Amino acid sequence: MGGSLAGALRGMGNSPRLCRRVVGIVRREAALPQAVLWVDEATTDLARLATADAVVLATPPRTILALLPRVAPLLRPRVLLTDLGSTKNAIVNAMAELPPDILVVGSHPMCGKEDAGLAAADPGLFQGAAFVFCPVPDRPLEALARACDLARAVGARPIVMDAPTHDRITAAVSHIPYAAAIALVAAAEQVAAGGADDALWQLAAGGFRDTTRIAVGDLDMWVDILLTNRSEILAHLRRLDRALAALTEAVLEEDAARLRALLARAQQRRRAGSF
Amino acid sequence: MGGSLAGALRGMGNSPRLCRRVVGIVRREAALPQAVLWVDEATTDLARLATADAVVLATPPRTILALLPRVAPLLRPRVLLTDLGSTKNAIVNAMAELPPDILVVGSHPMCGKEDAGLAAADPGLFQGAAFVFCPVPDRPLEALARACDLARAVGARPIVMDAPTHDRITAAVSHIPYAAAIALVAAAEQVAAGGADDALWQLAAGGFRDTTRIAVGDLDMWVDILLTNRSEILAHLRRLDRALAALTEAVLEEDAARLRALLARAQQRRRAGSF
Repeated sequence: MGGSLAGALRGMGNSPRLCRRVVGIVRREAALPQAVLWVDEATTDLARLATADAVVLATPPRTILALLPRVAPLLRPRVLLTDLGSTKNAIVNAMAELPPDILVVGSHPMCGKEDAGLAAADPGLFQGAAFVFCPVPDRPLEALARACDLARAVGARPIVMDAPTHDRITAAVSHIPYAAAIALVAAAEQVAAGGADDALWQLAAGGFRDTTRIAVGDLDMWVDILLTNRSEILAHLRRLDRALAALTEAVLEEDAARLRALLARAQQRRRAGSF
Repeated sequence: MGGSLAGALRGMGNSPRLCRRVVGIVRREAALPQAVLWVDEATTDLARLATADAVVLATPPRTILALLPRVAPLLRPRVLLTDLGSTKNAIVNAMAELPPDILVVGSHPMCGKEDAGLAAADPGLFQGAAFVFCPVPDRPLEALARACDLARAVGARPIVMDAPTHDRITAAVSHIPYAAAIALVAAAEQVAAGGADDALWQLAAGGFRDTTRIAVGDLDMWVDILLTNRSEILAHLRRLDRALAALTEAVLEEDAARLRALLARAQQRRRAGSF
Protein backbone atom coordinates (compact mmCIF):
# COMPACT_ATOMS: atom_id res chain seq x y z
CA MET A 1 0.00 0.00 0.00
CA GLY A 2 2.90 2.34 0.79
CA GLY A 3 4.54 1.56 -2.56
CA SER A 4 1.24 2.12 -4.36
CA LEU A 5 0.76 5.52 -2.72
CA ALA A 6 4.37 6.53 -3.43
CA GLY A 7 3.96 5.57 -7.08
CA ALA A 8 0.67 7.48 -7.35
CA LEU A 9 2.22 10.59 -5.75
CA ARG A 10 5.11 10.44 -8.22
CA GLY A 11 2.71 10.29 -11.16
CA MET A 12 3.59 6.73 -12.10
CA GLY A 13 -0.03 5.99 -12.99
CA ASN A 14 -1.60 8.09 -15.71
CA SER A 15 -1.58 11.22 -13.56
CA PRO A 16 0.91 14.07 -13.14
CA ARG A 17 3.51 14.11 -10.36
CA LEU A 18 1.79 15.27 -7.19
CA CYS A 19 4.68 16.07 -4.86
CA ARG A 20 8.27 17.20 -5.12
CA ARG A 21 10.04 14.27 -3.54
CA VAL A 22 8.84 10.94 -2.16
CA VAL A 23 11.22 9.35 0.35
CA GLY A 24 10.56 5.73 1.29
CA ILE A 25 11.86 4.62 4.67
CA VAL A 26 11.92 0.83 4.88
CA ARG A 27 12.67 -1.30 7.90
CA ARG A 28 15.04 -3.79 6.30
CA GLU A 29 18.06 -3.16 4.02
CA ALA A 30 16.84 -6.07 1.88
CA ALA A 31 13.73 -4.08 0.94
CA LEU A 32 15.70 -1.13 -0.53
CA PRO A 33 15.98 -2.48 -4.11
CA GLN A 34 12.19 -3.06 -4.29
CA ALA A 35 11.53 0.35 -2.70
CA VAL A 36 13.52 2.32 -5.27
CA LEU A 37 11.09 1.14 -7.92
CA TRP A 38 8.43 3.35 -6.33
CA VAL A 39 10.14 6.26 -4.52
CA ASP A 40 12.56 9.07 -5.37
CA GLU A 41 14.84 8.01 -2.53
CA ALA A 42 14.88 4.83 -0.43
CA THR A 43 16.54 4.62 2.97
CA THR A 44 16.41 2.75 6.27
CA ASP A 45 17.29 5.93 8.18
CA LEU A 46 14.37 7.18 10.27
CA ALA A 47 16.24 10.50 10.73
CA ARG A 48 15.27 11.42 7.13
CA LEU A 49 11.86 12.27 8.63
CA ALA A 50 13.38 15.55 9.87
CA THR A 51 12.79 17.26 6.50
CA ALA A 52 9.38 15.75 5.70
CA ASP A 53 6.26 17.85 5.03
CA ALA A 54 3.94 14.84 5.30
CA VAL A 55 4.53 11.39 6.77
CA VAL A 56 2.44 8.31 5.96
CA LEU A 57 3.01 5.19 8.07
CA ALA A 58 2.32 2.21 5.81
CA THR A 59 2.90 -0.85 7.99
CA PRO A 60 0.61 -3.35 9.77
CA PRO A 61 -1.32 -1.76 12.67
CA ARG A 62 0.80 -2.98 15.61
CA THR A 63 3.94 -1.63 13.93
CA ILE A 64 2.17 1.71 13.39
CA LEU A 65 1.41 1.77 17.12
CA ALA A 66 5.10 1.10 17.88
CA LEU A 67 6.29 3.68 15.34
CA LEU A 68 4.10 6.63 16.37
CA PRO A 69 6.04 7.59 19.55
CA ARG A 70 9.37 6.98 17.77
CA VAL A 71 8.48 9.07 14.72
CA ALA A 72 6.82 12.05 16.42
CA PRO A 73 9.97 13.49 18.10
CA LEU A 74 11.75 13.54 14.71
CA LEU A 75 9.16 15.73 12.96
CA ARG A 76 9.10 19.49 12.36
CA PRO A 77 6.06 21.39 13.69
CA ARG A 78 2.88 21.31 11.53
CA VAL A 79 3.93 18.21 9.64
CA LEU A 80 1.02 15.99 8.53
CA LEU A 81 1.31 12.55 10.18
CA THR A 82 -1.08 9.85 9.07
CA ASP A 83 -1.13 6.09 8.44
CA LEU A 84 -2.70 3.46 6.20
CA GLY A 85 -3.61 0.96 8.92
CA SER A 86 -6.67 -1.29 8.55
CA THR A 87 -7.89 -0.60 12.09
CA LYS A 88 -8.28 2.91 13.41
CA ASN A 89 -9.38 3.14 17.03
CA ALA A 90 -6.12 2.07 18.70
CA ILE A 91 -4.10 4.15 16.23
CA VAL A 92 -6.21 7.31 16.63
CA ASN A 93 -5.99 6.92 20.41
CA ALA A 94 -2.20 6.65 20.15
CA MET A 95 -2.12 9.73 17.87
CA ALA A 96 -4.02 11.68 20.52
CA GLU A 97 -1.02 11.20 22.83
CA LEU A 98 1.44 12.86 20.43
CA PRO A 99 2.67 16.49 20.79
CA PRO A 100 -0.06 18.98 19.77
CA ASP A 101 2.02 20.66 17.04
CA ILE A 102 1.89 17.52 14.87
CA LEU A 103 -1.05 17.39 12.45
CA VAL A 104 -2.39 13.87 13.10
CA VAL A 105 -5.26 12.02 11.39
CA GLY A 106 -5.98 8.33 10.88
CA SER A 107 -6.44 7.01 7.32
CA HIS A 108 -7.62 3.75 5.79
CA PRO A 109 -7.79 3.36 2.00
CA MET A 110 -10.33 0.59 1.29
CA CYS A 111 -8.47 -0.95 -1.63
CA GLY A 112 -6.17 -3.55 -0.08
CA LYS A 113 -5.14 -6.52 -2.16
CA GLU A 114 -4.46 -10.09 -1.04
CA ASP A 115 -0.84 -9.69 -2.15
CA ALA A 116 1.14 -7.47 0.18
CA GLY A 117 4.58 -5.92 -0.06
CA LEU A 118 6.37 -3.65 -2.51
CA ALA A 119 6.28 -6.27 -5.28
CA ALA A 120 2.48 -5.97 -5.40
CA ALA A 121 2.47 -2.14 -5.51
CA ASP A 122 0.13 -0.51 -8.05
CA PRO A 123 0.03 3.29 -8.55
CA GLY A 124 -3.51 3.00 -9.96
CA LEU A 125 -4.77 1.28 -6.80
CA PHE A 126 -6.55 4.34 -5.37
CA GLN A 127 -8.55 5.31 -8.46
CA GLY A 128 -12.21 5.41 -7.40
CA ALA A 129 -11.49 3.73 -4.05
CA ALA A 130 -13.07 4.76 -0.76
CA PHE A 131 -10.42 6.39 1.47
CA VAL A 132 -11.61 6.62 5.06
CA PHE A 133 -10.34 9.32 7.41
CA CYS A 134 -10.79 9.23 11.17
CA PRO A 135 -10.11 12.59 12.87
CA VAL A 136 -8.23 12.61 16.15
CA PRO A 137 -10.62 14.25 18.67
CA ASP A 138 -9.66 17.78 19.79
CA ARG A 139 -7.00 18.16 17.07
CA PRO A 140 -7.06 20.85 14.31
CA LEU A 141 -9.11 19.85 11.27
CA GLU A 142 -6.22 21.02 9.07
CA ALA A 143 -4.81 17.48 9.31
CA LEU A 144 -8.05 16.02 7.94
CA ALA A 145 -8.22 18.64 5.17
CA ARG A 146 -4.66 17.98 4.01
CA ALA A 147 -5.06 14.20 4.12
CA CYS A 148 -8.33 14.41 2.13
CA ASP A 149 -6.57 16.57 -0.48
CA LEU A 150 -3.92 13.89 -0.76
CA ALA A 151 -6.55 11.15 -1.19
CA ARG A 152 -8.41 13.11 -3.88
CA ALA A 153 -5.13 13.84 -5.65
CA VAL A 154 -4.53 10.09 -6.12
CA GLY A 155 -8.08 9.58 -7.40
CA ALA A 156 -9.72 8.27 -4.21
CA ARG A 157 -13.04 9.24 -2.64
CA PRO A 158 -12.57 10.57 0.93
CA ILE A 159 -15.04 9.40 3.59
CA VAL A 160 -14.89 10.80 7.12
CA MET A 161 -16.05 8.82 10.14
CA ASP A 162 -15.02 8.46 13.77
CA ALA A 163 -12.60 5.64 14.57
CA PRO A 164 -15.00 3.52 16.69
CA THR A 165 -17.55 3.49 13.84
CA HIS A 166 -14.83 2.58 11.34
CA ASP A 167 -13.70 -0.34 13.46
CA ARG A 168 -17.24 -1.61 14.09
CA ILE A 169 -18.05 -1.48 10.36
CA THR A 170 -14.79 -3.02 9.16
CA ALA A 171 -15.15 -5.85 11.69
CA ALA A 172 -18.46 -6.66 9.97
CA VAL A 173 -17.49 -6.20 6.31
CA SER A 174 -13.84 -7.23 6.35
CA HIS A 175 -12.33 -8.68 9.52
CA ILE A 176 -14.96 -11.30 10.38
CA PRO A 177 -15.41 -12.31 6.71
CA TYR A 178 -11.66 -13.02 6.88
CA ALA A 179 -12.02 -15.00 10.12
CA ALA A 180 -14.92 -16.95 8.57
CA ALA A 181 -12.80 -17.74 5.49
CA ILE A 182 -10.01 -19.05 7.74
CA ALA A 183 -12.49 -21.14 9.73
CA LEU A 184 -14.08 -22.55 6.54
CA VAL A 185 -10.67 -23.70 5.29
CA ALA A 186 -9.79 -25.16 8.71
CA ALA A 187 -13.11 -27.02 8.94
CA ALA A 188 -12.77 -28.36 5.37
CA GLU A 189 -9.25 -29.52 6.20
CA GLN A 190 -10.66 -31.67 9.00
CA VAL A 191 -12.95 -33.43 6.52
CA ALA A 192 -10.04 -33.83 4.10
CA ALA A 193 -7.86 -35.29 6.87
CA GLY A 194 -10.71 -37.70 7.62
CA GLY A 195 -9.95 -39.51 4.34
CA ALA A 196 -11.58 -37.35 1.65
CA ASP A 197 -8.43 -35.40 0.82
CA ASP A 198 -7.98 -35.51 -2.95
CA ALA A 199 -11.68 -35.59 -3.74
CA LEU A 200 -12.41 -32.69 -1.40
CA TRP A 201 -9.97 -30.23 -2.93
CA GLN A 202 -10.98 -31.47 -6.39
CA LEU A 203 -14.62 -30.53 -5.73
CA ALA A 204 -13.80 -27.21 -4.07
CA ALA A 205 -15.31 -25.09 -6.83
CA GLY A 206 -16.89 -21.63 -7.10
CA GLY A 207 -18.54 -21.31 -3.70
CA PHE A 208 -15.48 -22.37 -1.73
CA ARG A 209 -13.10 -20.44 -3.98
CA ASP A 210 -15.01 -17.17 -3.49
CA THR A 211 -15.79 -17.48 0.21
CA THR A 212 -12.19 -18.38 1.12
CA ARG A 213 -10.20 -16.18 -1.30
CA ILE A 214 -9.50 -13.62 1.44
CA ALA A 215 -7.81 -16.37 3.54
CA VAL A 216 -4.58 -16.03 1.52
CA GLY A 217 -4.05 -12.45 2.77
CA ASP A 218 -0.87 -11.21 4.45
CA LEU A 219 -0.39 -12.80 7.89
CA ASP A 220 1.40 -9.88 9.58
CA MET A 221 -1.40 -7.56 8.61
CA TRP A 222 -4.22 -9.88 9.65
CA VAL A 223 -2.73 -10.82 13.03
CA ASP A 224 -2.42 -7.09 13.74
CA ILE A 225 -5.94 -6.33 12.52
CA LEU A 226 -7.55 -9.00 14.69
CA LEU A 227 -5.56 -7.99 17.77
CA THR A 228 -5.86 -4.19 17.43
CA ASN A 229 -9.62 -4.39 16.77
CA ARG A 230 -10.10 -6.99 19.49
CA SER A 231 -13.31 -5.78 21.15
CA GLU A 232 -15.18 -5.23 17.86
CA ILE A 233 -13.85 -8.55 16.53
CA LEU A 234 -15.17 -10.37 19.59
CA ALA A 235 -18.51 -8.54 19.42
CA HIS A 236 -19.00 -9.37 15.76
CA LEU A 237 -17.92 -13.00 16.24
CA ARG A 238 -20.82 -13.22 18.70
CA ARG A 239 -23.19 -11.78 16.06
CA LEU A 240 -21.93 -14.30 13.50
CA ASP A 241 -22.31 -17.08 16.05
CA ARG A 242 -25.95 -16.10 16.68
CA ALA A 243 -26.66 -15.96 12.93
CA LEU A 244 -25.16 -19.43 12.45
CA ALA A 245 -27.10 -20.71 15.48
CA ALA A 246 -30.37 -19.51 13.91
CA LEU A 247 -29.57 -21.44 10.72
CA THR A 248 -28.50 -24.49 12.72
CA GLU A 249 -31.75 -24.49 14.66
CA ALA A 250 -33.89 -24.23 11.52
CA VAL A 251 -32.01 -27.15 9.92
CA LEU A 252 -32.11 -29.19 13.13
CA GLU A 253 -35.87 -28.73 13.42
CA GLU A 254 -36.36 -29.21 9.66
CA ASP A 255 -38.30 -25.95 9.67
CA ALA A 256 -38.35 -25.15 5.94
CA ALA A 257 -40.38 -21.96 6.30
CA ARG A 258 -38.09 -20.52 8.99
CA LEU A 259 -34.98 -21.55 7.05
CA ARG A 260 -36.29 -20.00 3.86
CA ALA A 261 -37.10 -16.75 5.68
CA LEU A 262 -33.55 -16.51 7.07
CA LEU A 263 -31.98 -17.22 3.66
CA ALA A 264 -34.37 -14.87 1.84
CA ARG A 265 -33.61 -11.95 4.12
CA ALA A 266 -29.84 -12.27 3.62
CA GLN A 267 -30.27 -12.88 -0.11
CA GLN A 268 -32.29 -9.66 -0.49
CA ARG A 269 -29.84 -7.65 1.59
CA ARG A 270 -26.87 -8.98 -0.40
CA ARG A 271 -28.62 -8.25 -3.71
CA ALA A 272 -29.45 -4.71 -2.59
CA GLY A 273 -25.75 -3.99 -1.96
CA SER A 274 -24.20 -2.01 -4.76
CA PHE A 275 -20.93 -3.93 -4.48
CA MET B 1 -29.02 -26.68 -15.13
CA GLY B 2 -31.67 -28.67 -16.98
CA GLY B 3 -31.83 -26.08 -19.76
CA SER B 4 -28.02 -26.02 -20.00
CA LEU B 5 -27.87 -29.81 -20.34
CA ALA B 6 -30.68 -29.83 -22.92
CA GLY B 7 -28.89 -27.16 -24.95
CA ALA B 8 -25.58 -29.05 -24.76
CA LEU B 9 -27.27 -32.32 -25.86
CA ARG B 10 -28.87 -30.53 -28.83
CA GLY B 11 -25.47 -29.19 -29.92
CA MET B 12 -26.29 -25.57 -29.10
CA GLY B 13 -22.75 -24.97 -27.88
CA ASN B 14 -19.90 -25.54 -30.30
CA SER B 15 -20.46 -29.29 -30.34
CA PRO B 16 -22.54 -31.59 -32.58
CA ARG B 17 -26.04 -32.70 -31.64
CA LEU B 18 -25.70 -35.57 -29.18
CA CYS B 19 -29.17 -37.08 -29.11
CA ARG B 20 -32.14 -37.43 -31.40
CA ARG B 21 -34.76 -35.55 -29.44
CA VAL B 22 -34.68 -33.62 -26.18
CA VAL B 23 -38.07 -33.28 -24.49
CA GLY B 24 -38.35 -30.82 -21.63
CA ILE B 25 -41.06 -31.47 -19.09
CA VAL B 26 -41.70 -28.37 -16.99
CA ARG B 27 -43.92 -28.08 -13.96
CA ARG B 28 -45.67 -24.82 -14.82
CA GLU B 29 -47.34 -23.79 -18.10
CA ALA B 30 -45.69 -20.38 -17.65
CA ALA B 31 -42.25 -21.96 -18.09
CA LEU B 32 -43.03 -23.41 -21.54
CA PRO B 33 -41.93 -20.35 -23.61
CA GLN B 34 -38.52 -20.27 -21.85
CA ALA B 35 -38.16 -24.05 -22.16
CA VAL B 36 -38.63 -24.12 -25.95
CA LEU B 37 -35.47 -22.05 -26.27
CA TRP B 38 -33.49 -25.09 -25.14
CA VAL B 39 -35.43 -28.27 -26.02
CA ASP B 40 -36.89 -29.89 -29.14
CA GLU B 41 -40.27 -30.20 -27.45
CA ALA B 42 -41.58 -28.60 -24.26
CA THR B 43 -44.54 -29.97 -22.33
CA THR B 44 -46.07 -30.14 -18.86
CA ASP B 45 -47.26 -33.71 -19.48
CA LEU B 46 -45.36 -36.23 -17.36
CA ALA B 47 -46.82 -39.03 -19.54
CA ARG B 48 -44.32 -38.05 -22.27
CA LEU B 49 -41.79 -40.01 -20.16
CA ALA B 50 -43.27 -43.22 -21.59
CA THR B 51 -41.10 -42.97 -24.73
CA ALA B 52 -37.88 -41.72 -23.08
CA ASP B 53 -34.54 -43.55 -23.35
CA ALA B 54 -32.95 -41.45 -20.61
CA VAL B 55 -34.54 -39.22 -17.96
CA VAL B 56 -32.71 -36.45 -16.09
CA LEU B 57 -34.51 -34.85 -13.13
CA ALA B 58 -33.31 -31.26 -12.96
CA THR B 59 -35.14 -29.75 -9.99
CA PRO B 60 -34.17 -28.87 -6.40
CA PRO B 61 -33.47 -31.98 -4.27
CA ARG B 62 -36.76 -32.21 -2.36
CA THR B 63 -38.69 -32.06 -5.63
CA ILE B 64 -36.45 -34.81 -7.02
CA LEU B 65 -37.37 -36.93 -3.98
CA ALA B 66 -41.05 -36.28 -4.63
CA LEU B 67 -40.74 -36.98 -8.37
CA LEU B 68 -38.84 -40.29 -8.22
CA PRO B 69 -41.79 -42.50 -7.17
CA ARG B 70 -44.10 -40.64 -9.59
CA VAL B 71 -41.74 -40.91 -12.54
CA ALA B 72 -40.60 -44.53 -12.15
CA PRO B 73 -43.95 -46.22 -12.99
CA LEU B 74 -44.11 -44.27 -16.27
CA LEU B 75 -40.76 -45.54 -17.64
CA ARG B 76 -39.99 -48.40 -19.99
CA PRO B 77 -37.57 -51.08 -18.72
CA ARG B 78 -33.82 -50.28 -18.93
CA VAL B 79 -34.35 -46.55 -19.16
CA LEU B 80 -31.57 -44.46 -17.57
CA LEU B 81 -32.96 -42.40 -14.69
CA THR B 82 -30.69 -39.84 -13.10
CA ASP B 83 -30.85 -36.35 -11.58
CA LEU B 84 -28.81 -33.17 -11.19
CA GLY B 85 -29.45 -32.61 -7.48
CA SER B 86 -26.86 -30.91 -5.29
CA THR B 87 -27.17 -33.50 -2.52
CA LYS B 88 -26.93 -37.19 -3.19
CA ASN B 89 -27.46 -39.40 -0.17
CA ALA B 90 -31.22 -38.97 0.23
CA ILE B 91 -31.72 -39.17 -3.54
CA VAL B 92 -29.60 -42.30 -4.00
CA ASN B 93 -31.45 -43.93 -1.09
CA ALA B 94 -34.78 -43.09 -2.77
CA MET B 95 -33.50 -44.47 -6.08
CA ALA B 96 -32.67 -47.75 -4.33
CA GLU B 97 -36.40 -48.18 -3.64
CA LEU B 98 -37.38 -48.00 -7.34
CA PRO B 99 -38.16 -51.09 -9.48
CA PRO B 100 -34.97 -53.00 -10.37
CA ASP B 101 -35.46 -52.73 -14.16
CA ILE B 102 -34.83 -48.96 -14.07
CA LEU B 103 -31.18 -47.95 -14.53
CA VAL B 104 -30.70 -45.50 -11.65
CA VAL B 105 -27.64 -43.43 -10.74
CA GLY B 106 -27.24 -40.13 -8.88
CA SER B 107 -25.49 -37.22 -10.62
CA HIS B 108 -24.19 -33.82 -9.56
CA PRO B 109 -22.48 -31.55 -12.09
CA MET B 110 -20.23 -29.17 -10.09
CA CYS B 111 -20.85 -26.11 -12.24
CA GLY B 112 -23.90 -24.45 -10.72
CA LYS B 113 -24.31 -20.72 -11.12
CA GLU B 114 -25.85 -18.22 -8.72
CA ASP B 115 -28.58 -17.50 -11.28
CA ALA B 116 -31.06 -20.33 -11.57
CA GLY B 117 -33.85 -21.06 -14.01
CA LEU B 118 -34.14 -21.44 -17.75
CA ALA B 119 -33.21 -17.80 -18.41
CA ALA B 120 -29.71 -18.50 -17.05
CA ALA B 121 -29.17 -21.68 -19.12
CA ASP B 122 -25.80 -22.01 -20.87
CA PRO B 123 -25.01 -24.98 -23.17
CA GLY B 124 -21.28 -24.46 -22.57
CA LEU B 125 -21.70 -24.80 -18.79
CA PHE B 126 -20.33 -28.36 -18.58
CA GLN B 127 -17.10 -27.84 -20.53
CA GLY B 128 -14.27 -28.94 -18.26
CA ALA B 129 -16.54 -29.18 -15.20
CA ALA B 130 -16.38 -31.98 -12.63
CA PHE B 131 -19.51 -34.17 -12.95
CA VAL B 132 -19.94 -36.38 -9.91
CA PHE B 133 -21.73 -39.73 -10.13
CA CYS B 134 -22.93 -41.67 -7.10
CA PRO B 135 -23.85 -45.29 -7.87
CA VAL B 136 -26.92 -46.79 -6.25
CA PRO B 137 -25.64 -49.79 -4.25
CA ASP B 138 -26.52 -53.23 -5.68
CA ARG B 139 -27.71 -51.78 -9.01
CA PRO B 140 -26.15 -52.63 -12.42
CA LEU B 141 -23.14 -50.46 -13.29
CA GLU B 142 -24.66 -49.93 -16.75
CA ALA B 143 -26.48 -46.89 -15.31
CA LEU B 144 -23.17 -45.37 -14.20
CA ALA B 145 -21.51 -46.14 -17.54
CA ARG B 146 -24.30 -44.53 -19.57
CA ALA B 147 -24.46 -41.45 -17.34
CA CYS B 148 -20.66 -41.01 -17.55
CA ASP B 149 -20.86 -41.24 -21.35
CA LEU B 150 -23.46 -38.49 -21.29
CA ALA B 151 -21.26 -36.30 -19.06
CA ARG B 152 -18.20 -36.78 -21.28
CA ALA B 153 -20.30 -36.04 -24.35
CA VAL B 154 -21.12 -32.57 -23.02
CA GLY B 155 -17.45 -31.92 -22.17
CA ALA B 156 -17.48 -32.70 -18.45
CA ARG B 157 -15.06 -34.76 -16.38
CA PRO B 158 -16.82 -37.69 -14.61
CA ILE B 159 -15.88 -38.40 -10.99
CA VAL B 160 -17.34 -41.41 -9.17
CA MET B 161 -17.82 -41.46 -5.41
CA ASP B 162 -20.33 -42.90 -2.97
CA ALA B 163 -23.21 -40.66 -1.94
CA PRO B 164 -22.23 -40.29 1.76
CA THR B 165 -18.73 -39.10 0.76
CA HIS B 166 -20.23 -36.68 -1.77
CA ASP B 167 -22.52 -35.19 0.84
CA ARG B 168 -19.78 -34.90 3.48
CA ILE B 169 -17.46 -33.16 0.99
CA THR B 170 -20.06 -30.82 -0.48
CA ALA B 171 -21.17 -29.81 3.02
CA ALA B 172 -17.57 -28.64 3.58
CA VAL B 173 -16.84 -27.01 0.23
CA SER B 174 -20.25 -25.69 -0.77
CA HIS B 175 -23.14 -25.94 1.69
CA ILE B 176 -21.49 -24.52 4.81
CA PRO B 177 -19.66 -21.79 2.83
CA TYR B 178 -23.18 -20.80 1.72
CA ALA B 179 -24.47 -20.89 5.30
CA ALA B 180 -21.47 -18.80 6.41
CA ALA B 181 -22.16 -16.25 3.65
CA ILE B 182 -25.79 -15.98 4.79
CA ALA B 183 -24.67 -15.57 8.42
CA LEU B 184 -22.07 -12.91 7.47
CA VAL B 185 -24.74 -10.84 5.70
CA ALA B 186 -27.17 -11.29 8.61
CA ALA B 187 -24.52 -10.26 11.17
CA ALA B 188 -23.49 -7.23 9.09
CA GLU B 189 -27.13 -6.23 8.80
CA GLN B 190 -27.35 -6.08 12.60
CA VAL B 191 -24.47 -3.58 12.65
CA ALA B 192 -26.10 -1.61 9.84
CA ALA B 193 -29.39 -1.56 11.71
CA GLY B 194 -27.47 -0.28 14.75
CA GLY B 195 -26.98 3.04 12.96
CA ALA B 196 -24.10 2.42 10.54
CA ASP B 197 -26.34 1.62 7.58
CA ASP B 198 -25.15 3.75 4.66
CA ALA B 199 -21.50 3.74 5.66
CA LEU B 200 -21.47 -0.01 6.20
CA TRP B 201 -22.70 -0.97 2.74
CA GLN B 202 -20.48 1.76 1.25
CA LEU B 203 -17.39 0.16 2.81
CA ALA B 204 -18.39 -3.42 1.95
CA ALA B 205 -15.61 -3.96 -0.56
CA GLY B 206 -13.64 -6.94 -1.89
CA GLY B 207 -13.56 -9.20 1.17
CA PHE B 208 -17.27 -8.93 1.85
CA ARG B 209 -18.21 -9.09 -1.82
CA ASP B 210 -16.29 -12.34 -2.35
CA THR B 211 -17.22 -14.10 0.87
CA THR B 212 -20.93 -13.36 0.47
CA ARG B 213 -21.40 -13.70 -3.30
CA ILE B 214 -22.87 -17.18 -2.91
CA ALA B 215 -25.61 -15.76 -0.64
CA VAL B 216 -27.60 -14.56 -3.69
CA GLY B 217 -28.16 -18.17 -4.85
CA ASP B 218 -31.56 -19.68 -5.61
CA LEU B 219 -33.66 -20.07 -2.44
CA ASP B 220 -35.61 -23.18 -3.49
CA MET B 221 -32.39 -24.99 -4.22
CA TRP B 222 -30.60 -23.94 -1.03
CA VAL B 223 -33.50 -24.72 1.32
CA ASP B 224 -33.61 -28.19 -0.23
CA ILE B 225 -29.84 -28.65 -0.03
CA LEU B 226 -29.67 -27.73 3.64
CA LEU B 227 -32.64 -29.95 4.54
CA THR B 228 -31.72 -33.00 2.44
CA ASN B 229 -28.11 -32.98 3.67
CA ARG B 230 -29.16 -32.28 7.23
CA SER B 231 -26.84 -34.57 9.20
CA GLU B 232 -23.69 -33.56 7.28
CA ILE B 233 -24.75 -29.90 7.47
CA LEU B 234 -25.11 -30.12 11.24
CA ALA B 235 -21.81 -32.02 11.58
CA HIS B 236 -19.92 -29.45 9.52
CA LEU B 237 -21.55 -26.51 11.30
CA ARG B 238 -20.03 -27.97 14.47
CA ARG B 239 -16.59 -28.13 12.78
CA LEU B 240 -16.96 -24.49 11.66
CA ASP B 241 -18.04 -23.55 15.16
CA ARG B 242 -14.92 -25.16 16.65
CA ALA B 243 -12.67 -23.42 14.13
CA LEU B 244 -14.27 -20.04 14.95
CA ALA B 245 -13.98 -20.80 18.66
CA ALA B 246 -10.23 -21.41 18.29
CA LEU B 247 -9.83 -18.01 16.58
CA THR B 248 -12.04 -16.34 19.20
CA GLU B 249 -9.94 -17.78 22.02
CA ALA B 250 -6.66 -16.62 20.47
CA VAL B 251 -8.04 -13.09 20.02
CA LEU B 252 -9.60 -13.06 23.49
CA GLU B 253 -6.28 -14.09 25.08
CA GLU B 254 -4.30 -11.76 22.74
CA ASP B 255 -2.14 -14.77 21.89
CA ALA B 256 -0.43 -13.49 18.72
CA ALA B 257 1.65 -16.64 18.19
CA ARG B 258 -1.35 -18.96 18.46
CA LEU B 259 -3.45 -16.68 16.23
CA ARG B 260 -0.71 -16.49 13.63
CA ALA B 261 -0.35 -20.29 13.61
CA LEU B 262 -4.08 -20.77 13.00
CA LEU B 263 -4.13 -18.19 10.19
CA ALA B 264 -0.92 -19.53 8.62
CA ARG B 265 -2.19 -23.09 8.47
CA ALA B 266 -5.39 -22.08 6.67
CA GLN B 267 -3.51 -19.67 4.40
CA GLN B 268 -1.13 -22.44 3.31
CA ARG B 269 -3.95 -24.92 2.77
CA ARG B 270 -5.93 -22.38 0.71
CA ARG B 271 -2.86 -21.48 -1.36
CA ALA B 272 -2.12 -25.18 -2.02
CA GLY B 273 -5.61 -25.65 -3.49
CA SER B 274 -5.58 -25.65 -7.26
CA PHE B 275 -8.87 -23.79 -7.43
